[in-house]
Amino acid sequence: MTVTVASEFESANQKYAETFDKGSLPLPPGRKVAVVTCMDARIDPAKALGLVEGDAHVIRNAGGRAIEAVRSIVISQQLLGTREIVVIHHTSCGMLTFSDNDIRTKIRQNLTEDADHIAFLPFGDLKQSVVDDVKMLRKNPLILDVPITGYIYDVKTGRINRVDA
Amino acid sequence: MTVTVASEFESANQKYAETFDKGSLPLPPGRKVAVVTCMDARIDPAKALGLVEGDAHVIRNAGGRAIEAVRSIVISQQLLGTREIVVIHHTSCGMLTFSDNDIRTKIRQNLTEDADHIAFLPFGDLKQSVVDDVKMLRKNPLILDVPITGYIYDVKTGRINRVDA
Repeated sequence: MTVTVASEFESANQKYAETFDKGSLPLPPGRKVAVVTCMDARIDPAKALGLVEGDAHVIRNAGGRAIEAVRSIVISQQLLGTREIVVIHHTSCGMLTFSDNDIRTKIRQNLTEDADHIAFLPFGDLKQSVVDDVKMLRKNPLILDVPITGYIYDVKTGRINRVDA
Repeated sequence: MTVTVASEFESANQKYAETFDKGSLPLPPGRKVAVVTCMDARIDPAKALGLVEGDAHVIRNAGGRAIEAVRSIVISQQLLGTREIVVIHHTSCGMLTFSDNDIRTKIRQNLTEDADHIAFLPFGDLKQSVVDDVKMLRKNPLILDVPITGYIYDVKTGRINRVDA
């Protein structure tokens, strides 16, 4: 019998729910901000940024790529009133370690499937990836003209360092 | 002078970094799991599921829609070794409150832009949205045959409730 992580989540969640006291928070984020960051296991955005339940939309994907976050940001701004965006990429990111060609080849070998239609959005230059994502959001006509700030999170120190864009 | 939330994040992060002791965690998630959930401000996946830094990939978008998470999950599985997926949608989700037509009309009014090319992925039935997303991942040829479990998180109680799919 395999013990799934899901069943471990159920046990941990039971404890969380026992002392849960955030049951009447409003739907729109209290601090009117949307954070875009990487799915990386080493990042806990709430702890690293001082967020509590109710504060902020947190959008996460491989690399924290803003282009894939556009749908979510538009919903966040148009329906739920956020008026600021923070983009955080990080050191030692998996996205620095491969190319579209690498992963497509791996998928062909491992799964005998073709993934040529997917842009996996890796990057070779971490700082530039933050600049690119902030600039893309600023230029995107579906995104409101709001403060957009970019950072690099250092997984060795837990510190965020601002990137001028 | 406007005080940005970003500057507040910098202050909170300084405190986090002062006592940071997770600087040597490996890149691949220790518990080999990828969690897909909503960007909703009321959800803190780490606290709700008992995750610490290094444990799990956490992918978040508006609704916790799995189709938008496919790129990230493929990277998670093919390059970083995760072997389980947990999908969590939640009660009182913003995605239950609008249609593609509603938000496209709003964007036309507010931004004088056309967003007809974006599928915003709202849903009318919460439980069905979890079933649909779990089944889509199970059928997707780019996703490995691994345990995939779906849940609804109750924002009033903090509890996750399993959805059979």
